Amino acid sequence: MEATTGARVPPKLTGRGQATRGRILEHAAELIYAKGVHATNNEQLRRAAGVSGSQLNHYFPTKESLVLAVIAWQAERVLAFHRSARFTSFDSLDGFREWAKYYTAYERSYQDGCSLGSLASEIIKTDLDVHEELAGAFDQWTDIFRDGLLQMQRLGRLDADADPTRLSNLLLSAYQGGMLLAQIARDVVPLEDALYGAIDYVQTFTTSTSGRDVRSAPV
Amino acid sequence: MEATTGARVPPKLTGRGQATRGRILEHAAELIYAKGVHATNNEQLRRAAGVSGSQLNHYFPTKESLVLAVIAWQAERVLAFHRSARFTSFDSLDGFREWAKYYTAYERSYQDGCSLGSLASEIIKTDLDVHEELAGAFDQWTDIFRDGLLQMQRLGRLDADADPTRLSNLLLSAYQGGMLLAQIARDVVPLEDALYGAIDYVQTFTTSTSGRDVRSAPV
Repeated sequence: MEATTGARVPPKLTGRGQATRGRILEHAAELIYAKGVHATNNEQLRRAAGVSGSQLNHYFPTKESLVLAVIAWQAERVLAFHRSARFTSFDSLDGFREWAKYYTAYERSYQDGCSLGSLASEIIKTDLDVHEELAGAFDQWTDIFRDGLLQMQRLGRLDADADPTRLSNLLLSAYQGGMLLAQIARDVVPLEDALYGAIDYVQTFTTSTSGRDVRSAPV
Repeated sequence: MEATTGARVPPKLTGRGQATRGRILEHAAELIYAKGVHATNNEQLRRAAGVSGSQLNHYFPTKESLVLAVIAWQAERVLAFHRSARFTSFDSLDGFREWAKYYTAYERSYQDGCSLGSLASEIIKTDLDVHEELAGAFDQWTDIFRDGLLQMQRLGRLDADADPTRLSNLLLSAYQGGMLLAQIARDVVPLEDALYGAIDYVQTFTTSTSGRDVRSAPV
């Protein structure tokens, strides 16, 4: 999940300024992912990133500006990861299975959950004005799945009567909900069941097979 | 979603004490549901419930004790609601469709999300020691679905090769994830797609039909 820290960098920053801002952002994202938004304070962030209070204040004058930048940073990482070659643009069931396999094999999945989803859950009831940023990121995420399913239809791999929008909403919901249940249970099984169940449902729309009898085994 | 406030009441409380504790709890649950755990403070709670600081402190000496009681209260409501007659113990697809219909017709679904799931998301990374309470509540919730699916198998309404545990994890994940996406999008569609998609997947295991051609329409 490599990504740059370039999201929303004000154009006037020097190279050194961008590097400092990027370092703060990286540590803020990590702290927030591990401990949550509310438990992350300026003092911890300054120490982790090795910056002064005035530097922190210069790049992120408010908590809202910091959280917005962390959303953009996490969204960029999640989207870039989903667009990486390993998932072949989700143009086949194998791409979706590779995706499920990645997250169910990844121990931190059921410790800290989805980097973007858990952040969204935590701040959605707060007064932080981050609605558009969050909604835009999740729209792009479902679009990646939907575009893959549309491509599967074009390639004749998915029935014409399958609804790519509906299926992509189910896939992302299964992922987000499965992540939450896995965190609560401290066990990967609910996530496995949700992801492979959703993918097996997509499989019932594949043209090459009846679907029902070749369900993927949980890994 | 009627329920009592009786969960975890210390046995030594008088009737009046129980009533006061119940009133505090009811207001705490409402405040936390609307504003989140972190934005709910003692001052707001005292005003809403009409109690003094010493009363509040008497019944809930720590934030942890209050959050634990709110989890128990919300869990009791959610579980009682799912056990209500309208869902006929989830012993048929109609029961599951009635459930999806309820939540997708309920405007607050995509405003404040699931009362228990959003609370879980918000506190799962905090130091509050509420793991067992949360895990127990969600176990009971999936058990309600699983028991319904097992009953469907006994009644010959669901194929023997369907896996009730796996399907119940998908159903609850679709609900939790769909609720989150609906909150983020401020639109019920992701929740509808997730719930009806998961239920339609269950339908592919029903014995009376091929499943594929009689998918439920989003309401």
